Amino acid sequence: MIPILSIVGRSNSGKTTLLEKLIRELTRRGRRVGTIKHHFHGPIEVDVPGKDSWRHKQAGALTVALFSPDAMFILGDIAGEWTLEAIAHQALFEVDLILTEGFKSGPMPKIEVNRTAQELPLLCGPADHLVAVVTDRELPLPVPRFDLDAVGSLADFIEQEFLKEIGPSRVDVLVGGRRILLDGQAQEILARVVRSLVGDCRDIRGGPPIELRIRGQSP
Amino acid sequence: MIPILSIVGRSNSGKTTLLEKLIRELTRRGRRVGTIKHHFHGPIEVDVPGKDSWRHKQAGALTVALFSPDAMFILGDIAGEWTLEAIAHQALFEVDLILTEGFKSGPMPKIEVNRTAQELPLLCGPADHLVAVVTDRELPLPVPRFDLDAVGSLADFIEQEFLKEIGPSRVDVLVGGRRILLDGQAQEILARVVRSLVGDCRDIRGGPPIELRIRGQSP
Repeated sequence: MIPILSIVGRSNSGKTTLLEKLIRELTRRGRRVGTIKHHFHGPIEVDVPGKDSWRHKQAGALTVALFSPDAMFILGDIAGEWTLEAIAHQALFEVDLILTEGFKSGPMPKIEVNRTAQELPLLCGPADHLVAVVTDRELPLPVPRFDLDAVGSLADFIEQEFLKEIGPSRVDVLVGGRRILLDGQAQEILARVVRSLVGDCRDIRGGPPIELRIRGQSP
Repeated sequence: MIPILSIVGRSNSGKTTLLEKLIRELTRRGRRVGTIKHHFHGPIEVDVPGKDSWRHKQAGALTVALFSPDAMFILGDIAGEWTLEAIAHQALFEVDLILTEGFKSGPMPKIEVNRTAQELPLLCGPADHLVAVVTDRELPLPVPRFDLDAVGSLADFIEQEFLKEIGPSRVDVLVGGRRILLDGQAQEILARVVRSLVGDCRDIRGGPPIELRIRGQSP
């Protein structure tokens, strides 16, 4: 289970700048960081030479995928299926921590950025899973406060709270698009049973990664 | 197991045009088609307002993901992991047939496009899993031949050979990034066991889709 932390804040509060600093600091400390951002500004435009994928889509293809060694692009009606957790599950498996920009709603722990210059109250409260505030104001807060430039202390806090005891999980499970937590023993049993059942059908030596997708049943 | 068919041919042989016609014809017949294309021409460029995702990547993030209701873009070192089969498994689960453009190597069945004007021999032979040729030439062929405009006959052939008896599979499995075939009974057992084990840990009513990812073991 890779921890997901959301950096939230009003427009122009400095979310991306904070994220950049945090990524640099955590990467310097040997942490592998992935990021996810929701794109609200209309369709993503991809510069495709010849626009072949767009021709496929226009001809009626439900989903088109384009990939190169360092990128993948999928166009299609994926709104229902691709939750934040599904993307984390499928695309960012090899990182230690996922930082998202935005995603104010949802159950992820949140760090809010708030600057004096904006003269606006906090967006989030404890009910929104707020775990820290990064600000140049003196605010009465029920959660830890960090100065805008105190990236080292913030990284300490993140490591302490979210990365301390979490090793890479052996098994990740999504049910209906939502991650569920399994303890170490349940993960171990699930991994062994699936390896054994798949191994009965095909000779798989060693311990290759296995991905399984079970279609939903109609009631 | 969603069938994957590759449309191959030399540069400018008319692969994309054939694909467009085929997608239109199969979609008209009620088939849900997905496409996958490998992008060889340097990095995919995405028009990101503010380029926030690029800033994340430059700051050191291993993988960055950007998504909107109709598209997803992932940038990172994904070369090793994202095989054609992995992409089909993860991104195009809700289609009946996947058509790819290119992918001459690999075990997928192939349809080659070859035009007189190019005056060049076929790229593929039976050893390359060639199943049909679309051409305006009279060639001695060990596989069925279709005229460049005979999209209806080609769609008939595809439906007959690749879509006739294949219902949507209940379970898809990737082992080490490669799809493995499980018969209906093995799929049924695997689905039941996983539902039961996951259900022991969490109350899951009905039959939601389940995705499972088991990390590889070091030897």
